[in-house]
Amino acid sequence: MVQIAVMGYGVVGSGVVEVLTNHAENIAKRAKEQIDIKYILDLREFPGSPFESKFTKSFDTILNDPDVKIVVEVMGGLNPSFDFVKRCLEAGKSVVTSNKELVAAKGAELLKIAQKNNLNFLFEASVGGGIPIIRPISQCLAANDVVEIAGILNGTTNFILTKMIREQMTFEDALALAQKLGYAERNPAADVEGFDACRKICILASLAYGKHVYPDQVHTEGITKISLADVEYAAAWGGVVKLIGQVKMMANGKVQTIVCPMFISRESQLANVDDVFNGIMVRGDSTGDVVFYGKGAGKLPTASAVVADVIDCVKHFKARKYLFWEDGSKDYVEDYLLNSTAMFVRAKAENETVAFQHISSIFGSVARLSRKKAESGEIAFVTNSMPEKEIDAKLAEIKATGIDVLNTIRIGDL
Amino acid sequence: MVQIAVMGYGVVGSGVVEVLTNHAENIAKRAKEQIDIKYILDLREFPGSPFESKFTKSFDTILNDPDVKIVVEVMGGLNPSFDFVKRCLEAGKSVVTSNKELVAAKGAELLKIAQKNNLNFLFEASVGGGIPIIRPISQCLAANDVVEIAGILNGTTNFILTKMIREQMTFEDALALAQKLGYAERNPAADVEGFDACRKICILASLAYGKHVYPDQVHTEGITKISLADVEYAAAWGGVVKLIGQVKMMANGKVQTIVCPMFISRESQLANVDDVFNGIMVRGDSTGDVVFYGKGAGKLPTASAVVADVIDCVKHFKARKYLFWEDGSKDYVEDYLLNSTAMFVRAKAENETVAFQHISSIFGSVARLSRKKAESGEIAFVTNSMPEKEIDAKLAEIKATGIDVLNTIRIGDL
Repeated sequence: MVQIAVMGYGVVGSGVVEVLTNHAENIAKRAKEQIDIKYILDLREFPGSPFESKFTKSFDTILNDPDVKIVVEVMGGLNPSFDFVKRCLEAGKSVVTSNKELVAAKGAELLKIAQKNNLNFLFEASVGGGIPIIRPISQCLAANDVVEIAGILNGTTNFILTKMIREQMTFEDALALAQKLGYAERNPAADVEGFDACRKICILASLAYGKHVYPDQVHTEGITKISLADVEYAAAWGGVVKLIGQVKMMANGKVQTIVCPMFISRESQLANVDDVFNGIMVRGDSTGDVVFYGKGAGKLPTASAVVADVIDCVKHFKARKYLFWEDGSKDYVEDYLLNSTAMFVRAKAENETVAFQHISSIFGSVARLSRKKAESGEIAFVTNSMPEKEIDAKLAEIKATGIDVLNTIRIGDL
Repeated sequence: MVQIAVMGYGVVGSGVVEVLTNHAENIAKRAKEQIDIKYILDLREFPGSPFESKFTKSFDTILNDPDVKIVVEVMGGLNPSFDFVKRCLEAGKSVVTSNKELVAAKGAELLKIAQKNNLNFLFEASVGGGIPIIRPISQCLAANDVVEIAGILNGTTNFILTKMIREQMTFEDALALAQKLGYAERNPAADVEGFDACRKICILASLAYGKHVYPDQVHTEGITKISLADVEYAAAWGGVVKLIGQVKMMANGKVQTIVCPMFISRESQLANVDDVFNGIMVRGDSTGDVVFYGKGAGKLPTASAVVADVIDCVKHFKARKYLFWEDGSKDYVEDYLLNSTAMFVRAKAENETVAFQHISSIFGSVARLSRKKAESGEIAFVTNSMPEKEIDAKLAEIKATGIDVLNTIRIGDL
């Protein structure tokens, strides 16, 4: 029998306890050991819970109990999670977490401690909820060079964009609906500003290329500026607007990475990933594109990924899993302004004909887009691909001619 | 350094050698050992090959060389593959294979020998080519009960159906094109008759539910009877025709499994899996639907999956992977005639009005479908869901009224 502790009894934590309880027999068969929850750490009281006897408010009780071999951290946030996880690893306990903020910020440091102490630090649930993605990248694609990873990594924003695309809801209405349905938090910033997707692409980038990419190194834009006009122009262009997290290895050994809304072609496998679903494309030099699709969040999908990691820990007490990446460095991520992209531009001008004369003389040829409900003076076009720095400079020139640039969205090559 | 042998230097075998050579440095890093190909078994000569010195025509040389710890079997077929693989396992060598025919026919037996000798028998490449699916099912979904697996498992037939759907090619023309492009063999039976998809669903079913399902237990229909008329009716119904392999666990402990063309809804994630791509949906009780998508065949995708298994073998010489299923039994698979399904029926009648009076009196209400190019007397409808046995009996009654039933296609609930 293996004894474990679960730290945090929120949505994911209670799901972990539920899955471990309901599937106990199957799990014991697969892990070849019975898994027993000795403690559940939470500051709140849960009177009448069938697990009442297991609750503790004292982290030290868990830390100092040598019977606890595996600790599940599902509290979220950095504080006190980082301190707790670090001390558990230092005390010889393997750790399983669903905490993407923790892994994105402290992954290299925690993996190093785990390696030193011959322990496992696993986090399948931190990206893609119930979608297996950490293991497939680290194991099955071991014989590939990963050329690129791109994905719809946040279900809440994907739900909002889907409502905008399919039902012409405004961003505000779609967000309100997402909050009502429990998909978005009352403070939705982590989702709609792209921070959540940013943490996930950091984890995938670090894993795929073996070196930590930190959230503050990734240029991140959310979806708050996306309007129904943009959605309509995306359709006119032949695609949809999706919030994409992307990372590529460059020839110079740096990585290119970004989180932002993109126009993606209707032909892309990611274009059909709708509602709260996530889709992650891994492009390998041998495999070609492999796409993983499923529910990226939710109590039971996330909990089942956590429990799968716990099972893996139980089976590998003496053989460390090989998840590992080294610490990052300041210049490892290319300045996003040096990346090349085509750009969709939506603007307003007094005189469209004159405006397009200016635009052509500044950008060269562009692809004009139109939509039915265009307001008077509304213009929209897609530039050729060029470095973002150059696009910014040209947009400044355009603004100087009196054109009011309302929004810009990158064209994804997915 | 770990020494291995590659048996078979066809498309996949040469790909394995290529991937191991081109990615040698990265692979050594990931496997924590250098992997050296000591022998390549093939009856043909490859003069001038950079690997010329490694070729052998003698299986015994490989079998009797104690330095060879891992044998890669990529010859295909059952004979002599089964004998060779069995003897390798009995001689203490781990085996990696891409041979779905072998795993589908002899998996339980070979896994048992591997277990007895504390060796690995791995076959990630046998299903889905470069798509990671064996590991995700066995590991990541360990905390789930697998409710159902359904997939587009054969790229050749999917290519043919895509050409029929998108470009109104006939089956014969699409098959000829597939042969011209090298996607289909000169004798295409294994693909178009569904045998290949059958082997793959056997492997997935055996893995997911822990008991061997043999190919001859799975009712298998190919796509040779699918006409452009069927494709048009699928569109009128709101979907597409795909060749689906499916398995579900039933409440009585038996499995329901079938390989056949199905109408699947445009909303299904499998509906957009086109051309030579495969898509596999795994429905877990906790995760919900997870879909894996990618190239299901091809030299390098398949080879990279084989090499990933080799790396895994190297890392687990002393810790066996836990792929395992027990032997099957005769009554483990439910008679497909007892399964319930809705059925699309295309038929021909002298008088449509009279025909539908007969049909209604026999089937109760049905959903009539129409298409633009319908020939005179052509009728098409979808029945309600009922056991196949009942459908067959009712179709016999219909035929007795003089209606000529031209084709029937099951409606998938995916």
